[in-house]
Amino acid sequence: MSTQEIANAFFGLCAEGKFEEAGRAYWSSDIVSIEAVDGPMAKVTGREAVEAKGAWWYASHEIHSIKVEGPYVNGNQFTVRFTMDVTPKDGQRLTMDEHGLYTVSDGKIVEERFFYGSHLAA
Amino acid sequence: MSTQEIANAFFGLCAEGKFEEAGRAYWSSDIVSIEAVDGPMAKVTGREAVEAKGAWWYASHEIHSIKVEGPYVNGNQFTVRFTMDVTPKDGQRLTMDEHGLYTVSDGKIVEERFFYGSHLAA
Repeated sequence: MSTQEIANAFFGLCAEGKFEEAGRAYWSSDIVSIEAVDGPMAKVTGREAVEAKGAWWYASHEIHSIKVEGPYVNGNQFTVRFTMDVTPKDGQRLTMDEHGLYTVSDGKIVEERFFYGSHLAA
Repeated sequence: MSTQEIANAFFGLCAEGKFEEAGRAYWSSDIVSIEAVDGPMAKVTGREAVEAKGAWWYASHEIHSIKVEGPYVNGNQFTVRFTMDVTPKDGQRLTMDEHGLYTVSDGKIVEERFFYGSHLAA
């Protein structure tokens, strides 16, 4: 599959709300997941640990809606925009606006890197 | 300046429509500009050549409006979304939906990489 085909398939599952299925289908066993935070979630390596991070996130947030836009492709990478209306279990309802940057190798996603939006006026 | 500060300043100029000023202010002299295309525009290196590419683009398109969203930051990189309503000089009016991925080093943008949106339903 080309990067465009993987991007389309991964995005299609996300667009149906099937985020965990998307990861299971397209993450490499050596997937590296990088967040723009300090601490233990900053860089998580390996499918098992990344799935556990996802499980933690879903358990820690009430999800009202997630909008996905894309995918955007260049070479062996693609991006997806996520706009998430969520309430952290210990916090206030908020909108999270992120770009995910995915790197593909041998038909699998080997790295995902998340960029957090600043919501500047434009 | 931190990556967040450079991202904010670069984005602020773009949000005012000052794209060329944004490049002049924040591109490294060794800037590398990467498009998701084949041919001579695929990878352009150096400020002079990248400015010439920009000049070609502005001369080749009638711009009706450009919307910018962001910036989104992770580590030494940031992304911006551009939604452009343009008419190529030899073509039909269209909407171009792109993500720009910018890599910062020593306070300057050393690489810009553009991802093209597929406009899949979401």
